[in-house]
Amino acid sequence: MPSAPTTADLQEARSRIAGKVHRTPLMASAALSDAAGATVLLKCENLQRAGAFKARGATNAVFALTDAEAARGVCTHSSGNHGQALALAARTRGIPCSVVMPDDAPAVKRAAVLGYGADVVPCAPTLAARESTLAEVAERTGATFVHPYEDPRVIAGQATAAAEVLDEADVDLILTPVGGGGLFAGTSLACRAFAPRVEVLGAEPAAVDDAARSLASGERAEAPAGITVADGLRTRLGALPFAILRDHARTIVTVDEASIVSAMRFVWERTKLIIEPSSAVPVAAALGGAVRGRGRVAIVLSGGNVDLDHLPFGKS
Amino acid sequence: MPSAPTTADLQEARSRIAGKVHRTPLMASAALSDAAGATVLLKCENLQRAGAFKARGATNAVFALTDAEAARGVCTHSSGNHGQALALAARTRGIPCSVVMPDDAPAVKRAAVLGYGADVVPCAPTLAARESTLAEVAERTGATFVHPYEDPRVIAGQATAAAEVLDEADVDLILTPVGGGGLFAGTSLACRAFAPRVEVLGAEPAAVDDAARSLASGERAEAPAGITVADGLRTRLGALPFAILRDHARTIVTVDEASIVSAMRFVWERTKLIIEPSSAVPVAAALGGAVRGRGRVAIVLSGGNVDLDHLPFGKS
Repeated sequence: MPSAPTTADLQEARSRIAGKVHRTPLMASAALSDAAGATVLLKCENLQRAGAFKARGATNAVFALTDAEAARGVCTHSSGNHGQALALAARTRGIPCSVVMPDDAPAVKRAAVLGYGADVVPCAPTLAARESTLAEVAERTGATFVHPYEDPRVIAGQATAAAEVLDEADVDLILTPVGGGGLFAGTSLACRAFAPRVEVLGAEPAAVDDAARSLASGERAEAPAGITVADGLRTRLGALPFAILRDHARTIVTVDEASIVSAMRFVWERTKLIIEPSSAVPVAAALGGAVRGRGRVAIVLSGGNVDLDHLPFGKS
Repeated sequence: MPSAPTTADLQEARSRIAGKVHRTPLMASAALSDAAGATVLLKCENLQRAGAFKARGATNAVFALTDAEAARGVCTHSSGNHGQALALAARTRGIPCSVVMPDDAPAVKRAAVLGYGADVVPCAPTLAARESTLAEVAERTGATFVHPYEDPRVIAGQATAAAEVLDEADVDLILTPVGGGGLFAGTSLACRAFAPRVEVLGAEPAAVDDAARSLASGERAEAPAGITVADGLRTRLGALPFAILRDHARTIVTVDEASIVSAMRFVWERTKLIIEPSSAVPVAAALGGAVRGRGRVAIVLSGGNVDLDHLPFGKS
């Protein structure tokens, strides 16, 4: 397993990605503050390039490559935001990118990756097929594999969102969603490095609570089997993020599915920001009382990529 | 008819409402810029208090009252954003507010006004009933009627959105939607006062194009009879806005209904901002080529109050 990024790595990530990704706004929300019982600030990664914080880690990883490495391109497997983010970062550097995606991935996701000029390499929708297809691509092209969260350069990139929050506001706590754990681990590292008195809390759907169980037990749990509307978080907590988070003694609150959908609707209606269900998970935790009385709380709205034809709140 | 606000009135409005409404962000959109053939900046009044630019004019009008006037409260008729904005402004000043609304107004609109602590006074859904009910309220309470656009204090308040744009960016053109004309006239006055070389262009649904016809002919047209998805713009151009706009020789582009819906979807998907159909009208104009080659163009996204249960883009 690679080592956790150092404070110097976090600082380098900030200068490396500056101007290549957006410095997203940090917006106050009176409605959310009232409902959560704390002063809530929203770090709007839904307004990030490619619609999610993943642009930070992917851009840091792509621009950390040597010219020789970069010339051979990058590759990854993803049916979600990381694939789009890597495709965008590769286009920004002007290098090739291949994204392995299962046959049954939504057409809109494939189109987004293609739209950034990357190759989409289809595979059967199994873990084994995904890994063998990726290995074949990497061998054939010499491309560097950029994992969505088991990569210190990616985690250092994700840490830049929290670093921006700490620059801009005097917060007491930062709350993030947890899937593979790259954002949560990066946020944790940024706070330890730059503002050690700031607390960091994760939020995870109860239906896929392997990260919460892992941090509670000290043993990394198996991949979750449940289903959640926050499909971006249906990922096993990574080994590297787990090691970082265990070392920092971080904890996670879990939220049920109905609360995720109603938190998403709350944000859409009250803040006029489009967020995806994964971003609604920490909001649901806040609305459920997890940060009541905790002072000034920044919530990372992780992304805004939704399919408008399939919204989770139906006609009432 | 009252006189148009002066440059001094516009300046006073800015200081009067400062801290009482949001200074909304001006966001660049690469996707819109590419599609429009100009550098597009979005003035995000959808992120304004009460979800629309109307908070500016209502707040300016309410805080321009003398203490004696204010003590008797304010009233208006509105089934839309102006009613909410006036209710919010009155609450901010701590004075009573009555909003006359037709019996058949959506429950969600009534609830929003009540939520800001105002009275809702129901009336039959006719122009005559609305006016007689309002007159009765004003006589009984002594409240000051704040018209949504035939009021120089309201127009001066709406002008502050453009004044903020001019402060922040070197733009060549500002594009706004047109309904009653308060925003368009205020924007026009702000540019003439503070940046006379900046052009101002209005956009209106073709289905309710009375403002476009009025400015083309020089005679104020009758109230429009058509139906549009941008229901906030289904209003006759006001006499005072018309006088201002005619004096400035402003023009209006019209857009069809399908282009409004697809522009709304474009903004939701590409910028992650929730806008109401009225805000999509100038975007549709830009996507239709109205600002191609015009340099740096600010589009005022007028509001973000939508009913998530009744979105105009259905399942595809």
